Amino acid sequence: MSAFPDFAAIEAMDATDPLRSMRARFVLPRGVIYLDGNSLGAASTAAFAELQSAATEEWGQELIRSWNTAGWFDMPLDLGDRVGRLIGAAAGQTVVCDTTSINIYKLLHAALALRPDRSVIVSEGGSFPTDIYMAEGVVATQADASLRLEGVDAPDIEELIDGDVAVVLVNHVNYKTGELRDMAKLTRKAHANGALVIWDLCHSAGALPVGLDGANVDFAVGCTYKYLNGGPGAPAFIYAAERHHGDIRQPLSGWWGHARPFAFEQRYAAGEGIRRFLCGTQPILSLRALKGALDIWDEVDMAALREKSLRLTDLFIALVEGKCAGHGLKLESPRDGARRGSQVSFSHPNAYEIMQALIARGVIGDFRAPSTMRFGFTPLYTSYADLWHAVDILEDILRHDTWREAHFGIRAAVT
Amino acid sequence: MSAFPDFAAIEAMDATDPLRSMRARFVLPRGVIYLDGNSLGAASTAAFAELQSAATEEWGQELIRSWNTAGWFDMPLDLGDRVGRLIGAAAGQTVVCDTTSINIYKLLHAALALRPDRSVIVSEGGSFPTDIYMAEGVVATQADASLRLEGVDAPDIEELIDGDVAVVLVNHVNYKTGELRDMAKLTRKAHANGALVIWDLCHSAGALPVGLDGANVDFAVGCTYKYLNGGPGAPAFIYAAERHHGDIRQPLSGWWGHARPFAFEQRYAAGEGIRRFLCGTQPILSLRALKGALDIWDEVDMAALREKSLRLTDLFIALVEGKCAGHGLKLESPRDGARRGSQVSFSHPNAYEIMQALIARGVIGDFRAPSTMRFGFTPLYTSYADLWHAVDILEDILRHDTWREAHFGIRAAVT
Repeated sequence: MSAFPDFAAIEAMDATDPLRSMRARFVLPRGVIYLDGNSLGAASTAAFAELQSAATEEWGQELIRSWNTAGWFDMPLDLGDRVGRLIGAAAGQTVVCDTTSINIYKLLHAALALRPDRSVIVSEGGSFPTDIYMAEGVVATQADASLRLEGVDAPDIEELIDGDVAVVLVNHVNYKTGELRDMAKLTRKAHANGALVIWDLCHSAGALPVGLDGANVDFAVGCTYKYLNGGPGAPAFIYAAERHHGDIRQPLSGWWGHARPFAFEQRYAAGEGIRRFLCGTQPILSLRALKGALDIWDEVDMAALREKSLRLTDLFIALVEGKCAGHGLKLESPRDGARRGSQVSFSHPNAYEIMQALIARGVIGDFRAPSTMRFGFTPLYTSYADLWHAVDILEDILRHDTWREAHFGIRAAVT
Repeated sequence: MSAFPDFAAIEAMDATDPLRSMRARFVLPRGVIYLDGNSLGAASTAAFAELQSAATEEWGQELIRSWNTAGWFDMPLDLGDRVGRLIGAAAGQTVVCDTTSINIYKLLHAALALRPDRSVIVSEGGSFPTDIYMAEGVVATQADASLRLEGVDAPDIEELIDGDVAVVLVNHVNYKTGELRDMAKLTRKAHANGALVIWDLCHSAGALPVGLDGANVDFAVGCTYKYLNGGPGAPAFIYAAERHHGDIRQPLSGWWGHARPFAFEQRYAAGEGIRRFLCGTQPILSLRALKGALDIWDEVDMAALREKSLRLTDLFIALVEGKCAGHGLKLESPRDGARRGSQVSFSHPNAYEIMQALIARGVIGDFRAPSTMRFGFTPLYTSYADLWHAVDILEDILRHDTWREAHFGIRAAVT
């Protein structure tokens, strides 16, 4: 067995955790150890309060007047700036709207328009699939565009970046393995070849400090319903570096991105700055739940978050490898914390059945085909003791082979 | 003065209104006569209950499991079929997702792909602008595509439809005047020329019976936050006639429209039928409020709705023209009910100030530049007596010129 701390040591880690008080802000079900915040973040009393007020007061009582009096119209930009602080973006460069998929489409078109003499999009074969699917959609509407994939056209993404590449679309943290890319290094490589970069932050926003401005990133997208805890399907975000704002062209040119949306002009005229990524009317109730979630984030120190995240993932690896040795689990995530996001994946030939058995026992992670068990660690509401208990249950399942009888089903959902 | 009923007659109309009981299902602010349900529909206790349960139970307690146990994943299609009943669409042809603007983009691309030898999009200069803006976005990504506008390139849309036209994008009810187009006639005209038709139902879905299947329509879009009362920014819908399903190609090819979304395949493969219009993860909380609103619609007879709508709009015209004669108001909506949606617009040189004064007195309609006052009538919660009182206040404002002092501001918002 590998070395791992005993329960007394783990209790001491919780007792001195500087983020310990945050857990009380969240609504967590009894009897559940929730290790799937990388798929859907937990609810909070702040999110519920915003939702309640948006529904009963703003919609119910103020009705159409709330577009102005409750600031509905400004929410995409207001919330964008608050997400911006968490991803290293100065104000005015981030907007919350639509979905990650649709925002990728906007950014790919914007990037291709900025590089009219180039036509290649580079992405990853191991990307969360929707990134590739959206790139395929762009290629289908741009006669000369084409797609190169890491793992398909070359083993390493850097080999694919040359003078024909307009844009590199890449995940900051891999959804399956949790591997963290070196943002600054890959961005430099792209820029050195005259290409632009779009970073997909779905699995890093709220999971670790992200420094978009510092790394000289061009564009980024991400979702708000994972580590940011914005609620199921909460709108996504787009970041665009200010230096590109004047030249952005994207085809989803709806009324909300117009320079004068209330003038009802007959022809489109793009609004200023990041606003031109807006398109149609946004789901206000879902945005207001996200606002509540971001109220909590305003109090979070991102360095403390990262420190706890690394301690959580290190501890989980040590506990699993220590307590569950000999049961065929294999670490799929980087062992080096510096190369890891806030999740840990283990493979096992019976990963699906074991995850079903874990969920039936109240330990919620998720399964990714063909053989991955994925566990996400959310420093705001996951305790060290949670991991001790979760691994105890995992070990019990493996030792008694109870996964062979598991039949409680949960279909894998949403990245 | 024109003839109009007295208050006793109006009370009798309310007393015998077959939809009278529906008003109690809605949450309406005290002291307000709400004539802006054509911009943002009123809240309902059913919508609040669904929202509450989605937030506290499904998100808060069940978390990721709700994707299956609460049917989150199936909601776009489930709700789509329920909207379908209100717009004359048999099951399996309607899906709720994204925004009207984005859905127009999908449909324009799908239509152009179905008519590869044609390149012209026809629309209306007087359209709600986002329809034109999205068509411009499509034209920007399709080198050979072009746009013809009624009122710009010819006075009547029918003159613009010839053998070069791939698709006609047209509003069923004009957002500003309330004019209702003859859906069957224009669809026949397009089909006779080999073109496809996209109907924008934003101002007709829930305002009157719509018969998409019966009129042999190809495609339609619409929003759910006006007459359908789904909540601010609730997701929009798409209809596609079943005969086109096998051939639909649209570039917003996200993971939710994939044939096997949970297989995490590396390449896109479009799902079956209407599902292929889905793209990214939908805002579940906003969708659940819409579900509550649709529960009410399940009980509504659309013929009774239309009958009451016509009586409301006829009465409003009679009251305004009768009580406010000589004050410079001019009817902008068709006088013939058969050519009118569920709204009435009047122009006045001081329309903006008069609408401000009305809102300050609790009568909420809206203003559209340069000189239109728009009043929407929602048969589920507007009473005939509401109109009597609203016009009394309007007459008082006009008679005393109190609009000259009006300064309470509301910016026109959202179609």
